[in-house]
Amino acid sequence: MTPPASAVVGMVGAGQLARMTAHAAGPLDVWLRVLARSDDESAARHAAEALLGDPDDARMMKELASGCDAVTFDHELVGGAALEMLVNTGVPVRPRPEALRYAQDKAFQRRSFAAAALAVPAFQVADTPEDARAAALEVGLPVVVKTARGGYDGRGVWWASDDHELSRILSMLTAHAGALVVEEAVPLERELAVIVARRPAGQTVTYPLIETVQRNGICTELVVPAQVPEAVSREARRLGQRAAEATNAVGIVAVELFWTGEHVLVNEVATRPHNSGHWTIEGALTSQFANHLRAVLDWPLGRTHACAPVVATVNVLGAADGVDPRANLSAALELSDVAVHLYGKQPHPGRKLGHVTALGDDLGETRMRAREAAGRLGGRQP
Amino acid sequence: MTPPASAVVGMVGAGQLARMTAHAAGPLDVWLRVLARSDDESAARHAAEALLGDPDDARMMKELASGCDAVTFDHELVGGAALEMLVNTGVPVRPRPEALRYAQDKAFQRRSFAAAALAVPAFQVADTPEDARAAALEVGLPVVVKTARGGYDGRGVWWASDDHELSRILSMLTAHAGALVVEEAVPLERELAVIVARRPAGQTVTYPLIETVQRNGICTELVVPAQVPEAVSREARRLGQRAAEATNAVGIVAVELFWTGEHVLVNEVATRPHNSGHWTIEGALTSQFANHLRAVLDWPLGRTHACAPVVATVNVLGAADGVDPRANLSAALELSDVAVHLYGKQPHPGRKLGHVTALGDDLGETRMRAREAAGRLGGRQP
Repeated sequence: MTPPASAVVGMVGAGQLARMTAHAAGPLDVWLRVLARSDDESAARHAAEALLGDPDDARMMKELASGCDAVTFDHELVGGAALEMLVNTGVPVRPRPEALRYAQDKAFQRRSFAAAALAVPAFQVADTPEDARAAALEVGLPVVVKTARGGYDGRGVWWASDDHELSRILSMLTAHAGALVVEEAVPLERELAVIVARRPAGQTVTYPLIETVQRNGICTELVVPAQVPEAVSREARRLGQRAAEATNAVGIVAVELFWTGEHVLVNEVATRPHNSGHWTIEGALTSQFANHLRAVLDWPLGRTHACAPVVATVNVLGAADGVDPRANLSAALELSDVAVHLYGKQPHPGRKLGHVTALGDDLGETRMRAREAAGRLGGRQP
Repeated sequence: MTPPASAVVGMVGAGQLARMTAHAAGPLDVWLRVLARSDDESAARHAAEALLGDPDDARMMKELASGCDAVTFDHELVGGAALEMLVNTGVPVRPRPEALRYAQDKAFQRRSFAAAALAVPAFQVADTPEDARAAALEVGLPVVVKTARGGYDGRGVWWASDDHELSRILSMLTAHAGALVVEEAVPLERELAVIVARRPAGQTVTYPLIETVQRNGICTELVVPAQVPEAVSREARRLGQRAAEATNAVGIVAVELFWTGEHVLVNEVATRPHNSGHWTIEGALTSQFANHLRAVLDWPLGRTHACAPVVATVNVLGAADGVDPRANLSAALELSDVAVHLYGKQPHPGRKLGHVTALGDDLGETRMRAREAAGRLGGRQP
C-alpha cells in the first residue's frame, strides 16, 4: 500500500541521524520508512515505519524501497551488492552508489579530490603495512594512518609521530586486508565543516561555515559562524562546495576541512546528514534533515541562514561511569535557554547520546550555556 | 513494559495537536502514547505508540495510563466517567478534570471568571431557548448565542443582530438539551491570545501576545507580536495570565481575548496546546508543544521569547474544491523562507490541514510570505 503522505522515503539505517530525519519528516508529512537492525535503535520508534533487518539482505532492501519516492541513507556502511539491488528496484537511490563511495573509501576520496585539483593533505595509498611504512617515509613523519574503509568517529585512524609509534600501528595492522591511507599530519589551527544540500534538478544551498572541535577523533562541539578570518571562511566554503560538487551526490553533503593556519584542506566527506549540521535544527529555518529530505525528493531547498549571531552545539557523549543523560534531563532543562536532544540510546562510554544547542549574541556566553547543559546531562552538578 | 525513554506521556486524542506534540517529544526522548479513534488520525503514525479506541471506554483509558508519568489531552471532549477512571489509575492527570471543565463548559467558564472579577462580555446562562430569549433581551441585541458544551472552530456559536435572527437560531435550538450562553456581541477591534505554560511545582511562563485573525469562527492567521498599543498588550497579557491561573490547569493554557477598542475581555480558554500557539514551533526556542510536555511532567519550562521581530502563521484550510495541499507542497516550498506544516489529514472544506510560518523583520512582508505559501498549498498559482 502507499501510505497517505506527501511522499514516501526509505532510509537505510536507524541511528540518530535517521531519528532526526524522522522529526523533520513530520511537518512535511513525509512518510519515513527506516531499515533498523533492531527495534531499540534510535529511530525505530520515531519514524512512521520501521523494517527490521540487515541492509546487506537484498530482500530487505527491496521491501524498504517498495512504494518509495526515494531511498537514502543514515550511514554509508552498505555493501555493493545491496546497493546494486537497490538501484535495480528502479526507485531513485539518493545519493547514488558512485557518490556514496567518497564516504566509504578514503583512498578513492583522496585520489579523486587530488585529481580534481582540490586541496588535500599530502598522501599515499598503501595496500600492505610494509607499503605503508615506505609511504610514511615518503610523506614524512608525523603521519596519520587510516584504513580506507569502515572507520568512523576516530576508529580506524592512528597518529604516528615517530618511527616507534609507526611500527606499533603497522604491526597491529598486519591482519588488516584493505588499503591504508598514509598522509601528512597537518598542523590543525581549526577544524571546519561545510554543509551543502544538492538537488537532482541542480539547485544547491550551503549553510554558514561551521567550526568543529574534536577530541580523540569524535566531534564534541560546533560553533557557527566559525571563528576564522573572512578570507579563510570564503576559501573554506568554496573548497567545501567544490568537494560537494565533485561527489555529484544528491542530498546533504558534509565536507570536513582542516585549516592549518596557512591552507584549507579537505579532510573527509559524508554524503548524508552529519553531526556538524546538528546546530541547524534550531539555528536555521530549514534543518539539514529537512533539506536532506527535500533534496532527495527533488523538492525546492529551504533557507540555510543562521537565525542568531552565534549558534553553539555541544555533543553529549557517554561517560566512563555509564551515567544515563535521561536521568539528568530535568536538571539540564533548568537552563531554560537551550535546546536539548537525546537520542534514546543506551549509554556506553564515548557513544553519542545527544546534543545541546544554544543561540545567542556572544560566543563565550552561548558556548558556556550549551556546555553547562551538556555537563548537567552527563551528571555534573550545577 | 516501560519503554526506554526519559518519560512516558499518554495523550487522549490524536489530532494535529497530538501530532505536533509527538514531534516535540522526539528530541526530549519522551515516549508519547496517543489514544486515537482510528489508524489514519493525524498523530497515529507520528507518536511512538498509538492505541486505537474510544476515550469514553474506561478500559482504554486504563491502558493509556499504564506506565505513564502523566496523562494529558489534545482535546477536552472527554466524558466525566472516563476522566474519573483516569484519575483513579493514580497516574497524574494533567490538567485535572476540574481545570478541563473551563474548556468543556462555557457557562461554567463565564461564571467562574466573572466571580473571580476577570473581565468577560456581559452574559446570561439559559437552560432553554425560551430563557435564552429573555436573556438576550436583558443583555441587549446584538448577542452571541453559544451552546455551553461541545462547540469548536465556530460550531455551536451563532450571532443574532436582530430579533428575527434570534428567533431563527432559538427555533433551531429547540431540540438542544444543554445550557446556552447568551452574551453581548462586543465590537472586535482585534482578537488576541495569551499562551501560558504552568507547572505543578508553580513555575509559569508566558509567550508574547498573539494577534489572531478569525473567519467564520475559525482561526486563519496569527501575528506576533500583536499589533496593539503597549498598554493594551500589557493589559491583555495580565488578563490572560490571571485567567490561566484561575483555571489552576497544568500544561499549556491558551486564553483567547477580545479587544473592543476600549476593553480587553476574556473570550475562551483551552487547557491544552492551541492553534494560536503554532507560531512557537519556529518562532520560539521552546514550542508550546515542548513546554506542554515539560509542564505536565513537572520539568523546568523553556524560553518563550520570539526569535524574530515578526512571526506570522497562516492556517491552511480545506478548500471547497477538495484540493489536497500535499499535491502542492513542492510549489509552496519554492518559497524557501517559510516553514510548512501539513497534518496528514484528508481534505474537507474548512478543515485545518496545515499551517505555514514565516519569520521576518517587516510585518507586511512576513505576513505576505506566509500567505503566499499557504495560498500555493491551496492550489493558487504563483
